[in-house]
Amino acid sequence: MLYLVGLGLADEKDITVRGLEVVKSASRVYLEAYTSILLVEKEKLEAYYGRPVIVADRELVESGSDDILENAKDVDVAFLVVGDPFGATTHTDLVLRARELGIPTRTIPNASILSAIGCTGLQLYNFGQTVSMVFFTETWKPSSYYDRVKENAQLGLHTLVLLDIKVKEQSLENMARGRKIYEPPRYMTVAQCASQMLETEEERQEGVYGPDSLAIGAARVGAPDQKLVAGTLKELAEVDMGRPLHSLVLLGKRAHDLERDYIEQFAVNKETFHAAWKQGYGHT
Amino acid sequence: MLYLVGLGLADEKDITVRGLEVVKSASRVYLEAYTSILLVEKEKLEAYYGRPVIVADRELVESGSDDILENAKDVDVAFLVVGDPFGATTHTDLVLRARELGIPTRTIPNASILSAIGCTGLQLYNFGQTVSMVFFTETWKPSSYYDRVKENAQLGLHTLVLLDIKVKEQSLENMARGRKIYEPPRYMTVAQCASQMLETEEERQEGVYGPDSLAIGAARVGAPDQKLVAGTLKELAEVDMGRPLHSLVLLGKRAHDLERDYIEQFAVNKETFHAAWKQGYGHT
Repeated sequence: MLYLVGLGLADEKDITVRGLEVVKSASRVYLEAYTSILLVEKEKLEAYYGRPVIVADRELVESGSDDILENAKDVDVAFLVVGDPFGATTHTDLVLRARELGIPTRTIPNASILSAIGCTGLQLYNFGQTVSMVFFTETWKPSSYYDRVKENAQLGLHTLVLLDIKVKEQSLENMARGRKIYEPPRYMTVAQCASQMLETEEERQEGVYGPDSLAIGAARVGAPDQKLVAGTLKELAEVDMGRPLHSLVLLGKRAHDLERDYIEQFAVNKETFHAAWKQGYGHT
Repeated sequence: MLYLVGLGLADEKDITVRGLEVVKSASRVYLEAYTSILLVEKEKLEAYYGRPVIVADRELVESGSDDILENAKDVDVAFLVVGDPFGATTHTDLVLRARELGIPTRTIPNASILSAIGCTGLQLYNFGQTVSMVFFTETWKPSSYYDRVKENAQLGLHTLVLLDIKVKEQSLENMARGRKIYEPPRYMTVAQCASQMLETEEERQEGVYGPDSLAIGAARVGAPDQKLVAGTLKELAEVDMGRPLHSLVLLGKRAHDLERDYIEQFAVNKETFHAAWKQGYGHT
């Protein structure tokens, strides 16, 4: 059996009781570590589980899935995924491959940022499509996310923006020379996301949002040091939210007063918050 | 401290390790039981936790919240919520009341249908707003959900429809006479939802969907007897998905081939599925 086990969002105790049973009894345990990260080290997980954990990078999952699935008809293999196994990144490929090989699969759900973002006080009913923001480079600033945000904004809906992480990346030079030397991991911050959003708006000029649009920065959702900050995009572009992971929510115009009352508690600046709110929100 | 503890979706072992620690050590444990249900009885939870659980019905949470919060400045109170505490129903009121009283709060996230619905193989990025479907009566058939579905459909997005549950309801007669006699609980089925959707379309005639539109019925997501069925709304209006809880996803036109390959595996009828797909999906 292949088990896809959600680990939840913060640390080793966010696994479910059933998930922990699976991990303790499986023959092999893999940890998917390229689309999200837990806020604790692999070693801490291993100590907690009392057994070794094999880190599965993108390469292994995408081209070595048969290694992961080896023998899984006869023994149990646990594939651990931060958040929910069917959260932002689905592992459809791995499941489909398992089915082709006649290996039964089972999923152990867990918390995902897609619902945990409700900790902001925003109603999940008022969210539109979720989008992803990748790290811009000098020459590559993909803005397809902007079209999705526009669709949401036109309906007055909030947009959850998931932020890029880069793990086990090679520099172009090292890649060209075939050297397996990897750059240190990078996790996008709320400030980087807000400033990239403003950069796209400058370029596209479609008025989907602007420097005075309200947004919420969320860091380490579900952890004891979870941090929420509400402010304009201009303000969030300057904010320091501390260690990863971060997410951002662009507020929709359909936001209502109960949502305002909740988020104003963590406004960077209550004055600019109220001025921005009066300009454009809650009037529907 | 007030702890809002997510229980996950299926049974007593879907609680997280941290959540279980909170439940075992809290002074009082409440179970919110009117917006969703776990697939096991309260008694089973009590046996598993080794302690009594107080069922919190709507009345208690809405007008007796000070009872729930009594003394919570000094002792720990656990408020258990099926799914994620910030899932479809947020308990913002309770948290705001706690804050007014100076009681610190903490949330223990867990799986929610909003991300677990990814088990259908549909990409969560392709979902629009989530809607709720209530039981229609002879005289009350609210169709505001239809406007939200229309907004999603126009963008080609999937819509997750959460289905009504009725717990501890009084008949009009018993209510009028002040008799605290309650009707047996009712849980909407996929078939009821599909047929109510068709009823609304008949009435509104805006062509948002029709009898041949594709949808997915999901029952007991996350449980060992989880069941998924894909078919036209006409087909789903006849389907028997077994015991609660059920949910439904109306497929968006932007659905792509990888999603099709996944869902066709559980089509009621592969022929009608492919005919319906060819008519309207995956062409964007």
